[in-house]
Amino acid sequence: MTQQLPSQTPEEQYLRELIAHGLLIPMGVDGVYGRSAVFEDVLDRFGALVGQWGAENGAEVIRFPPVMNRHHFEHSGYMKNFPQLAGTIHSFCGGEKEHQALRRKMENGEDWTADQKAIDIVVTPAACYSLYPTVAQRGPLSREGALFDVYSWCLRHEPSLDPARMQLFRMREYVRLGTPEQVSEFRAAWIERGQRIIESLQVPARLDVANDPFFGRQGKLLANNQRDQNLKFELLIPITSEEKPTACLSFNYAQDYFGQLWNIPTADGAPCHSACVAFGMERIALAFFKHHGFDPKRWPAGVRKVLWG
Amino acid sequence: MTQQLPSQTPEEQYLRELIAHGLLIPMGVDGVYGRSAVFEDVLDRFGALVGQWGAENGAEVIRFPPVMNRHHFEHSGYMKNFPQLAGTIHSFCGGEKEHQALRRKMENGEDWTADQKAIDIVVTPAACYSLYPTVAQRGPLSREGALFDVYSWCLRHEPSLDPARMQLFRMREYVRLGTPEQVSEFRAAWIERGQRIIESLQVPARLDVANDPFFGRQGKLLANNQRDQNLKFELLIPITSEEKPTACLSFNYAQDYFGQLWNIPTADGAPCHSACVAFGMERIALAFFKHHGFDPKRWPAGVRKVLWG
Repeated sequence: MTQQLPSQTPEEQYLRELIAHGLLIPMGVDGVYGRSAVFEDVLDRFGALVGQWGAENGAEVIRFPPVMNRHHFEHSGYMKNFPQLAGTIHSFCGGEKEHQALRRKMENGEDWTADQKAIDIVVTPAACYSLYPTVAQRGPLSREGALFDVYSWCLRHEPSLDPARMQLFRMREYVRLGTPEQVSEFRAAWIERGQRIIESLQVPARLDVANDPFFGRQGKLLANNQRDQNLKFELLIPITSEEKPTACLSFNYAQDYFGQLWNIPTADGAPCHSACVAFGMERIALAFFKHHGFDPKRWPAGVRKVLWG
Repeated sequence: MTQQLPSQTPEEQYLRELIAHGLLIPMGVDGVYGRSAVFEDVLDRFGALVGQWGAENGAEVIRFPPVMNRHHFEHSGYMKNFPQLAGTIHSFCGGEKEHQALRRKMENGEDWTADQKAIDIVVTPAACYSLYPTVAQRGPLSREGALFDVYSWCLRHEPSLDPARMQLFRMREYVRLGTPEQVSEFRAAWIERGQRIIESLQVPARLDVANDPFFGRQGKLLANNQRDQNLKFELLIPITSEEKPTACLSFNYAQDYFGQLWNIPTADGAPCHSACVAFGMERIALAFFKHHGFDPKRWPAGVRKVLWG
């Protein structure tokens, strides 16, 4: 499994190594893997490290399932910007007769999926997407604004042999809602704090403006706007490439986009601003395995101390 | 929120209480909720309790994402038996022109979901479904057979106001594969052990044969067969009803169904038998909140000791 074929990219090679070491378990679909106990432990320990700040700062913990309300999703505008990445969920909604037809199609190897009907949920595209309609139901924010700790499985439909580009992965986020000042302060502090956390784990990283894959021609304008206004920074860590490092943390300033969209006022009645720091949990674990080796027991003592205490 | 309307069922009343106490967070779809930190802590502590046995008995831990390979799913036969419960995942696979049409449909409030195409994954119907094809890839079992600890988000598309019938929930399973004797011994021991665990948590429970919702007329025969052969037992705990208690643990003997289906031989070359014990994690947490109250800090000392040590 670890033999390097001439045509293999560095991404493919790292994927094979992760599989050979039992950390990822192939499931027959690119970008979809089982995880071993060792992999999960690294993820959990990093999650606990990040979670300390929220516990100390009164972040409200909410754990959403790996799906969200389809109507909320439609309202979010995600299909305008990233239609290719999203996944709607569809079910069989027929009776006996339709079921017989379905079974015949399956037995004959015909496509049976076109008869499935969209149900009221879609796979979660980002951990914070269910949060905004939830907060909106509570009425105006208090003077202090609000702070949340969310964590969810997310889907990005982009099959790839790069282990750092999984279709299913977990995203941990702190989300701050409030006045522009509260939100900017939160983001600026996390841009510093995020870098210090990664430094403490002895992994190289550099900050850059983000380059999101907005869809189509119009998407180019949105991507330019995002860059020009410094709305999203990413902490990049080289995993399989020095030249194209991987975004492992992101620091997003949504201005009053969600406040307007979901009608979430601050105590003064203006649409709230929001920002979030997002941790790509699998990517971060993959960065550790790359830089420190496949066996966490043999990682540098300083790294082990930060993660396992 | 806690006021009981005359038309409210006990299930609806319990759901409102859970929401009023902040344990579940409505997401606008029946059977789909966010979870609070307190709810998650109970779930995690019960998971840790159950996990001790696997650690002591060498169970291999695999954590699959909340989706599985669609071809594996098709091969599993799930659509024959429970088509109404399953969820396929569909994506936008068009270009600029199709995207413009999609946006028009969304803006006009028309159905846009029929244009989505099924991708290679479906939402996981049961935690162990990705395990069998994974094990099959490894070749014949050893003489000792195999033992796994799996845990996954699962979908059952059955919108309901009963909080114990969520559409998205987590299932923890121990799965044993081997000879009929190895597998029967595993299941018999877990039928005892499962009851003792629930007893130690001071919740009433009784064992019964299962009554799975197989689809349609043919499904009735399958359900009868399952009952007559004692293939599946459930540990039932009254949550919102004494007369209709909720299946919180199940003990399944699949005979050589998965061994045949996925071609998993024992060391002797015969198709392996398999059994699993499955824990409906949300249901178990809901049973604790029902019997011990909404604040775990005030649960009986004996229960707190078992869960929090």
